[in-house]
Amino acid sequence: MSDRHRIVTLTTDFGTNDAYVAAVKGVILSINPEVVTVDICHSITPQNILEAAFLISTVHKYFPDGTIHVVVVDPGVGSNRKAIILKTPSAFFVAPDNGVLSYIIAEFATNKTFTTNELRNINPRLKLQKISQNLEAVAITNPNFWLHPVSATFHARDIFAPTAAHLSLGIPLNEFGEKLTQVHAFPIPRPYRDPKGNITGHILHIDNFGNLITDIKSSDLPQEEVTILIGKHCIRKLSQFYAQSKGLLALIGSSGYLEIAYRNGNAASILNAKVGDKVTLKIAKTVCKQKHGA
Amino acid sequence: MSDRHRIVTLTTDFGTNDAYVAAVKGVILSINPEVVTVDICHSITPQNILEAAFLISTVHKYFPDGTIHVVVVDPGVGSNRKAIILKTPSAFFVAPDNGVLSYIIAEFATNKTFTTNELRNINPRLKLQKISQNLEAVAITNPNFWLHPVSATFHARDIFAPTAAHLSLGIPLNEFGEKLTQVHAFPIPRPYRDPKGNITGHILHIDNFGNLITDIKSSDLPQEEVTILIGKHCIRKLSQFYAQSKGLLALIGSSGYLEIAYRNGNAASILNAKVGDKVTLKIAKTVCKQKHGA
Amino acid sequence: MSDRHRIVTLTTDFGTNDAYVAAVKGVILSINPEVVTVDICHSITPQNILEAAFLISTVHKYFPDGTIHVVVVDPGVGSNRKAIILKTPSAFFVAPDNGVLSYIIAEFATNKTFTTNELRNINPRLKLQKISQNLEAVAITNPNFWLHPVSATFHARDIFAPTAAHLSLGIPLNEFGEKLTQVHAFPIPRPYRDPKGNITGHILHIDNFGNLITDIKSSDLPQEEVTILIGKHCIRKLSQFYAQSKGLLALIGSSGYLEIAYRNGNAASILNAKVGDKVTLKIAKTVCKQKHGA
Repeated sequence: MSDRHRIVTLTTDFGTNDAYVAAVKGVILSINPEVVTVDICHSITPQNILEAAFLISTVHKYFPDGTIHVVVVDPGVGSNRKAIILKTPSAFFVAPDNGVLSYIIAEFATNKTFTTNELRNINPRLKLQKISQNLEAVAITNPNFWLHPVSATFHARDIFAPTAAHLSLGIPLNEFGEKLTQVHAFPIPRPYRDPKGNITGHILHIDNFGNLITDIKSSDLPQEEVTILIGKHCIRKLSQFYAQSKGLLALIGSSGYLEIAYRNGNAASILNAKVGDKVTLKIAKTVCKQKHGA
Repeated sequence: MSDRHRIVTLTTDFGTNDAYVAAVKGVILSINPEVVTVDICHSITPQNILEAAFLISTVHKYFPDGTIHVVVVDPGVGSNRKAIILKTPSAFFVAPDNGVLSYIIAEFATNKTFTTNELRNINPRLKLQKISQNLEAVAITNPNFWLHPVSATFHARDIFAPTAAHLSLGIPLNEFGEKLTQVHAFPIPRPYRDPKGNITGHILHIDNFGNLITDIKSSDLPQEEVTILIGKHCIRKLSQFYAQSKGLLALIGSSGYLEIAYRNGNAASILNAKVGDKVTLKIAKTVCKQKHGA
Repeated sequence: MSDRHRIVTLTTDFGTNDAYVAAVKGVILSINPEVVTVDICHSITPQNILEAAFLISTVHKYFPDGTIHVVVVDPGVGSNRKAIILKTPSAFFVAPDNGVLSYIIAEFATNKTFTTNELRNINPRLKLQKISQNLEAVAITNPNFWLHPVSATFHARDIFAPTAAHLSLGIPLNEFGEKLTQVHAFPIPRPYRDPKGNITGHILHIDNFGNLITDIKSSDLPQEEVTILIGKHCIRKLSQFYAQSKGLLALIGSSGYLEIAYRNGNAASILNAKVGDKVTLKIAKTVCKQKHGA
């Protein structure tokens, strides 16, 4: 794909009832008609930066090298929050500097071992964070690449889209603005391991099937057999796939996170679960007297 | 289009609130950046195989020859259900072998005259069925064309998408796996004709306008004039188009099926109708005393 | 882009639960596989011509010259309403002649100063209107460019899509049908200015964020400071961007219209506002005793 990057993905909270997403695509195609745009998701809960941050982290690696990911959940549009381009070894991210790239930054962080008990339903604090050496970042400050007049309320159309389109034409990173060594990021929610080895995590995302995706990764799992506790429910062991068990089940989902599901049903509705709820892995010997479950 | 098939359509129950559809597109574009993906529908009711089966049957013929249709409603993902490629004279279908291609298989069946009174709301039994000679099928078993590691829960991303992308590159069918002469299909719901010539069918699908699309085809219509009965309602005759009548009306819709509609209104809400409800065509002389209707 | 126009946009009330949009795309790609289709919006309220008319007017200018916009909200499909192509200096519009291009026609009208107090919630009367000299229009009457058999209920698939696809191949306008000098349009809702200079407009559109977009344009604003009244609420002055104020705020939005918003909230829900509601700009000296607002 040399220096002409043709794919631009879009992740926003714009919904699909307005023409906002189309305006962004029109601007991109006006600058580079060869771009292929791919919608990641436009149904991010309005202003929910963390939701978008998680979603883009689960999908970017499935795109070709050189893909440009525009991620705009931007309640601070028009204020003095920065706009940035973040370059990883395989992709570009164009976004407001408001934490929406937190998972991407964490993915490339050299020290990945930190554990926190921070809960998703308690608002995490945005921090200025040094980016690791395999990343490059610039502030988007060169107005030559923008659509004028720049609206104070729609930078996706007037700044992010034309920046992405010009990036797709192969314009070097340093022409867009000054280099940054720090950007804003949220601490990534990670499960907590108690002295006995039990692990407590949280629901990060609820998908279209009602599957509950937690922040517990496959690499977090203890070697011992575990019992999974969520609310008053108990699941005796991990399944491999949805159709393997009846009723409530737990498995490692397609993004590598522990997931609670319900066979041919909607676990979120059945359990009345919500983002931020706790999920605990108890090692061994817990007696499971659940009604639902395998 | 020679042996490079560029269009890949997607029909799933993934919804549009997650990044699942985007992951599928990313995988396809990573293998063949020339593919144009077209979304058929991602709002299939989760796990509703018959809904997807009907929807793809109404639209595939409008695509260019050589189009590759990926149809994934797959509650059995990870289990021992097969994955298949079905080749018709004009297109390829990539799907789990769970009945989601039932209408396609029936469309090409040599004996099309069978009539059944089977209702949609009673679960039809999936049967292993010999495919007709103008079709070819293979089991998708060659892991060389898959994305590794293969997740147990997301074959759309790890098996169906890369298979479709490799198909689009012109790789011959027989390289994907062994030939099949039988695949699984549901009996297609067909209307019942009683000895007097009256026809009873069922609502197959309710569209965005609340139009009720039945399993009664234009070719099923008797030559006599008919009165249409649905619930307690009665429609005196067929209309040609929506704006021809006031209130409740019946016409042959754009896919060739009898459709109940309500002028500038939502027939499904007004009649409180649902998929599986009966619709009857009475020949002649029925006196129609409906409140709504033409 | 010479005479090969590659981008075709789609604005409809088809929703995304059916395969209707995909059928339209399939037909277009069958005729011209080089077309790039862009969805503007498919969630127009069924049969709401004015909603579609407004939406396409806010976005068409962001697309490259030569873009073909297919706009189909078409309750009269199959009746004797005309189908038209409207050519502006930069784009083509393919649509039923039912008022769905009203804003486009008004945008190019030479006399733009008319003011009306007509309310959106009172049904405006569709009028036959002479188009200005910088526009060209033809009736779509040449069946050589249609998909046969033409269904009486789905002209988007059978007439509008193939017309757009043939237009994209560079076929001259006059081959599609006879020239028109008049088309149907709704009077565009415009705010009313009273003798004191106070301006009363209406909510035209409510977006995904609950922002209330009015028919008051930035050029309508008086030079004096204004107080904004909506229902029982009062906003002291205009903001520049969403994050500038707390609570209820008013600003000129990205399409150049006055917009009522609520910081990190949904103004439509909070105010229980709906399309057609009045918004008034009072010049100076109004004392604002609102609970919400800046």
